[in-house]
Amino acid sequence: MGMVGGGKDAFIGAIHRIAAHMDGLIEISCGALSIHPDIARESGEMLFLPPERTYLTFEEMIEKESKMPADKRIDFITIVTPNFAHYAPAAMALDHGFNVIVEKPMTFTLQEAKDLKKKLEESGKLLCLTHTYSGYPMVKQARAMVADGVFGKTRKIVVEYYQGWLSRLSEREGNAQASWRTDPKKSGKAGAMGDIGTHAAHLAEYISGSKITKLCADLNIMVPGRALDDDGNVLLKFENEAAGVLIASQVAAGEENNLKIKLYGENGGLEWAQQEPNTLLVKWLDKPTQIYRAGNNYPNTLSSFATENTRTPGGHPEGYLEAFANIYRNFAHTLMAKMEGKEPTKEMLDFPGIEDGVRGMAFIENVVASGNSKEKWTDFVV
Amino acid sequence: MGMVGGGKDAFIGAIHRIAAHMDGLIEISCGALSIHPDIARESGEMLFLPPERTYLTFEEMIEKESKMPADKRIDFITIVTPNFAHYAPAAMALDHGFNVIVEKPMTFTLQEAKDLKKKLEESGKLLCLTHTYSGYPMVKQARAMVADGVFGKTRKIVVEYYQGWLSRLSEREGNAQASWRTDPKKSGKAGAMGDIGTHAAHLAEYISGSKITKLCADLNIMVPGRALDDDGNVLLKFENEAAGVLIASQVAAGEENNLKIKLYGENGGLEWAQQEPNTLLVKWLDKPTQIYRAGNNYPNTLSSFATENTRTPGGHPEGYLEAFANIYRNFAHTLMAKMEGKEPTKEMLDFPGIEDGVRGMAFIENVVASGNSKEKWTDFVV
Amino acid sequence: MGMVGGGKDAFIGAIHRIAAHMDGLIEISCGALSIHPDIARESGEMLFLPPERTYLTFEEMIEKESKMPADKRIDFITIVTPNFAHYAPAAMALDHGFNVIVEKPMTFTLQEAKDLKKKLEESGKLLCLTHTYSGYPMVKQARAMVADGVFGKTRKIVVEYYQGWLSRLSEREGNAQASWRTDPKKSGKAGAMGDIGTHAAHLAEYISGSKITKLCADLNIMVPGRALDDDGNVLLKFENEAAGVLIASQVAAGEENNLKIKLYGENGGLEWAQQEPNTLLVKWLDKPTQIYRAGNNYPNTLSSFATENTRTPGGHPEGYLEAFANIYRNFAHTLMAKMEGKEPTKEMLDFPGIEDGVRGMAFIENVVASGNSKEKWTDFVV
Amino acid sequence: MGMVGGGKDAFIGAIHRIAAHMDGLIEISCGALSIHPDIARESGEMLFLPPERTYLTFEEMIEKESKMPADKRIDFITIVTPNFAHYAPAAMALDHGFNVIVEKPMTFTLQEAKDLKKKLEESGKLLCLTHTYSGYPMVKQARAMVADGVFGKTRKIVVEYYQGWLSRLSEREGNAQASWRTDPKKSGKAGAMGDIGTHAAHLAEYISGSKITKLCADLNIMVPGRALDDDGNVLLKFENEAAGVLIASQVAAGEENNLKIKLYGENGGLEWAQQEPNTLLVKWLDKPTQIYRAGNNYPNTLSSFATENTRTPGGHPEGYLEAFANIYRNFAHTLMAKMEGKEPTKEMLDFPGIEDGVRGMAFIENVVASGNSKEKWTDFVV
Repeated sequence: MGMVGGGKDAFIGAIHRIAAHMDGLIEISCGALSIHPDIARESGEMLFLPPERTYLTFEEMIEKESKMPADKRIDFITIVTPNFAHYAPAAMALDHGFNVIVEKPMTFTLQEAKDLKKKLEESGKLLCLTHTYSGYPMVKQARAMVADGVFGKTRKIVVEYYQGWLSRLSEREGNAQASWRTDPKKSGKAGAMGDIGTHAAHLAEYISGSKITKLCADLNIMVPGRALDDDGNVLLKFENEAAGVLIASQVAAGEENNLKIKLYGENGGLEWAQQEPNTLLVKWLDKPTQIYRAGNNYPNTLSSFATENTRTPGGHPEGYLEAFANIYRNFAHTLMAKMEGKEPTKEMLDFPGIEDGVRGMAFIENVVASGNSKEKWTDFVV
Repeated sequence: MGMVGGGKDAFIGAIHRIAAHMDGLIEISCGALSIHPDIARESGEMLFLPPERTYLTFEEMIEKESKMPADKRIDFITIVTPNFAHYAPAAMALDHGFNVIVEKPMTFTLQEAKDLKKKLEESGKLLCLTHTYSGYPMVKQARAMVADGVFGKTRKIVVEYYQGWLSRLSEREGNAQASWRTDPKKSGKAGAMGDIGTHAAHLAEYISGSKITKLCADLNIMVPGRALDDDGNVLLKFENEAAGVLIASQVAAGEENNLKIKLYGENGGLEWAQQEPNTLLVKWLDKPTQIYRAGNNYPNTLSSFATENTRTPGGHPEGYLEAFANIYRNFAHTLMAKMEGKEPTKEMLDFPGIEDGVRGMAFIENVVASGNSKEKWTDFVV
Repeated sequence: MGMVGGGKDAFIGAIHRIAAHMDGLIEISCGALSIHPDIARESGEMLFLPPERTYLTFEEMIEKESKMPADKRIDFITIVTPNFAHYAPAAMALDHGFNVIVEKPMTFTLQEAKDLKKKLEESGKLLCLTHTYSGYPMVKQARAMVADGVFGKTRKIVVEYYQGWLSRLSEREGNAQASWRTDPKKSGKAGAMGDIGTHAAHLAEYISGSKITKLCADLNIMVPGRALDDDGNVLLKFENEAAGVLIASQVAAGEENNLKIKLYGENGGLEWAQQEPNTLLVKWLDKPTQIYRAGNNYPNTLSSFATENTRTPGGHPEGYLEAFANIYRNFAHTLMAKMEGKEPTKEMLDFPGIEDGVRGMAFIENVVASGNSKEKWTDFVV
Repeated sequence: MGMVGGGKDAFIGAIHRIAAHMDGLIEISCGALSIHPDIARESGEMLFLPPERTYLTFEEMIEKESKMPADKRIDFITIVTPNFAHYAPAAMALDHGFNVIVEKPMTFTLQEAKDLKKKLEESGKLLCLTHTYSGYPMVKQARAMVADGVFGKTRKIVVEYYQGWLSRLSEREGNAQASWRTDPKKSGKAGAMGDIGTHAAHLAEYISGSKITKLCADLNIMVPGRALDDDGNVLLKFENEAAGVLIASQVAAGEENNLKIKLYGENGGLEWAQQEPNTLLVKWLDKPTQIYRAGNNYPNTLSSFATENTRTPGGHPEGYLEAFANIYRNFAHTLMAKMEGKEPTKEMLDFPGIEDGVRGMAFIENVVASGNSKEKWTDFVV
């Protein structure tokens, strides 16, 4: 794997590397780790990369790597730059025959997302989008139970994502993360909705197996002086007539990364929260709530999607990094299967991809449009 | 105290009696407990009421009791009938010089609420509305902290109230509670929004000390065949520019009576859930979350509103009945103070009253109007 | 009911009165509320007692009340004095034909307990001991499930009771509660073990339906200057060969009243904690843990012992006062049945009595003996 | 790194590899992965090891690797075999100049542990013992706070470790893990006490910074037909006069891997549970309980030992594998510092080593001796 972005001054690059390393399947072999040459070089050293594969631009990396012999060449590149700098390296990588892993949101605009989709289809390569939360085994269990119909028709979905770190105008106090994420030129049309709202929307669609069809958004700038939404509340309609609510805030003072989802169907429902991700509450209309736990596979309890994404027995908590690593591992297994001419299993194929990326960008466009509209409902158009 | 409604086949009447009895301040002396004479009589016996004060209609009760000598006469009547039958006994009681406790929602229509307000002002009597949840000590603590400004300006309020008991068409299966609550002729314009949405709205306004100014409602009938909303999601704006969400559902299969509220201000926030009502999570932007607990009064921690509404030391859980009893007790203390010509303390006066009742009815009118509107925002008009 | 002790400066008397009042079945009619005449009189006024039934000594009260006509006379007396002053009024009450409710520990010594048992048997009256925790509906559910054998043979029981309020030498700082409870002349042979260890031991025996047969105690005085144990850890053996641990501490700084019990059998187990008393975790060897909830009676879930001791539907939390009131109510129902010549139901009879009282005193004797012994195991002798 | 044991049929070997890989600092270069040649070979392939470095015995591995040039040679070996097969490879590795990581318990007998200590001192090499639980950041935070004296003198420590997987005689049903762990010839003198009791004892000493001086054990075989204890309750005394309880059970039906610790000092205490390992409850005698969270570094809150062992910001849960990886990483950093002639920091040196290993073996000897003794207290001798 080669990495674009993720130098020593970045946050998410280090997470990607841990995720990639965890299962001993993936090695980082080269990188264009920073647009600042010094940082690029120092980061390469820190990662034990050979100097000749420590590039200063992604163009150079893709160009040179594509000319290396097949057995030395990287199989895929991972793009962990700010949002505005996703499309160009992704497109170039596909053009040069590399598979791609890209941070979410997939691109800067919906149009770029559609272009990338076209390019991907032409290339025949794989693209993986790191919507981390769908990598948790109990999220996969939730999805499997809804898909199996155990709760009947879904009626209600409530997804909440609270952070507090933008409660003050930190972007003016030298916080680099805050700085680009609140800048429309780097982040895109939406702030909180792009950064964490897309995660919440993806999680709701992933678990429910149902798509958002309409939305009604109240987007707010709670901290004066900020250019993008830092808070929002959105009413949702899903294609199966379920109603929903999506709440995302980066000014929820005192919250760290509080992501929760509840879903209710005709016969029961479920509740999952990232803080204790190995637990899934399974609620029933006519019997006591059950506590499903990752890694604890009682007969006829957990789906293969949950068990194959767990590394430890029940009671040994896994977390965010393992969820991240599940996305990398499933992608790697799919890639290996493909390279060996085998059919990947449905469990291997269970990682977010281009469709999720396009819908994520559409969510941003639609939620911003609804935020600006006086009408109650805005159709979710892609 | 005399009771209107609350016969042996009813639910909330029994709760009111426990609440009234708990502190040894109030006795039930008479009742018009049911419109069915047999049930009225049997209920009177069950409550050890003398036959001559077991009435068959509230008119008879108010009429006769008002003619009794002052030292025998009841001081107030409690109305625990279905919504449509609140106004008439309340109005008549005030007219005959009795104070009144009434279940929420206060009346059947907003107009009735306004009429009652006028009548109350003319009568000089006391009216208490049993919005139970505002009786919890940690809810009072939350209100006190917000009022003290410790969190700075309020930015966001999310209140959720989930029940699952109307997940099926139980009103057709002989469930008496379900039957009247889903019948527009007995319940009023709204179903879930009237039954539990009003509680949630009251809680949000009570804790935040701020009024809802606009709302945007998505009201749903999730169970086919039902006439009133059994589910709803509402975006809110408050007078202090805070944004909010109110979720109320009676088709959240697997939920019992799950009421939660979160509030975020500039410097921190708080979280309270009815399931463990003696705990208040107090969150801070720059220090660890604290667990405030009812009854555990560390120096400079709990307000007098919390401590005076607690009966046991920390760690001895109090619950719903005690919260209910707090409303009765504060009302009784206020009444006693008034009767003794004393000034009630601000802690005594801390029970919901006519303003809350009018706003509750206005909430129902406005939320239904918004549910029917294609515009995003509907002004909250009283 | 007449009350001995429980004046306005006491703690537990007020709790007893709330418990007695709650269900409208019991009235406090007279009292010998304090050994200080002024406090006795003021307390009587506070409780609206007539002056002629506000006595200055329990002897006077029992004497005079026993001579009143049957329809005016109290049916039972409640004793809420410090431990050393339980036996005398209880014995005298029985001798004069009154039933008795007494705070735990039942007496000052085991010998007194045995004497009281003899007296009770001779009197044919009822005695109730307020081991509050056995009044919780989910504790009763736990007991019922163990008795039904759903977990197979019990293997392990761990009961913990932590308080922190004696972490400092508060008895020297004017804390009246601390003062008598740490004084061997008023409290008895044991401190923490008598005050809360007996509760824990009772709870373990009540839920498991099995008696302690041996114990091995490590009793500690953690706060220098104190005369009685303020902390202790005890290994237990039960008659069914189960092993156990009992932990009781009043120097667990930061704890309020943290009582927890876990029980494991061959096929599963259960966990209950007073802080959230309406929840019972039911664990299984081969299926997911279930959350049983008071008041939420799914088909074939809760036993009649749980449902008949609940006043509200699921999700309306009940607490310590309701548990206390359950003991009063079951006692009252048994008494009423007896007075009406009816057979009380097994649910009515489910309140702690003389056997629990004798075992409680034996626990204190045995645990202190074991604490002083160099041998590992001390037989639990009664 | 070279691995002894940990073939594809083993459990803990895979965990070690994830822990080693996670931070990109350590590579597995060779292994003697199984005593079954076929499994050894297949496991080597699975791990992408070159055939020439896939050894069939640890002797061969250590012999051959020690003769490789310094820049190719492994720096340390990791021993993940059953307990009886720890000493020989560890001793031989030290003799041949390799550093060692070894699973707990360190050896089969206390004597072996002492021998190993001597050998280690002679060798000048590093030894690391994987007491995983001490790798959690909030466990390190707990230790730091106790060491800083914020709670005053420690009074009470309660550590509990429950598993349910040996509730039936699984060792007779082909469960390989159960088979060796319940076999005195492979596991050693103790069953549950060796397997999980040692973890609990280590955690108690690690957090409290105080050593066990006396113990009183009740060891049980709850499942008939088993040769070693599967359950035990132990009273403890610590060198600072604190009293404690250690509970370990593998027949706690329905439990997964439930490890909890509570510690109380004069001014407050703390509580940590593995199920939600990123939270540390910090309790105070005179102010509300605080929730300390890994990764959320408010000013003056977390110690460097906590922050340097966290990879993600607050709210992104880390778990068991990260705790394991912390041990590997700290060991690796210490090793690298040493190899570079630098002084390792105190944070690097924070991994369990030979002293912990010797004490762990002494715990097993002493707890078994106490279990067999009729005396209450057995001195903890090393």
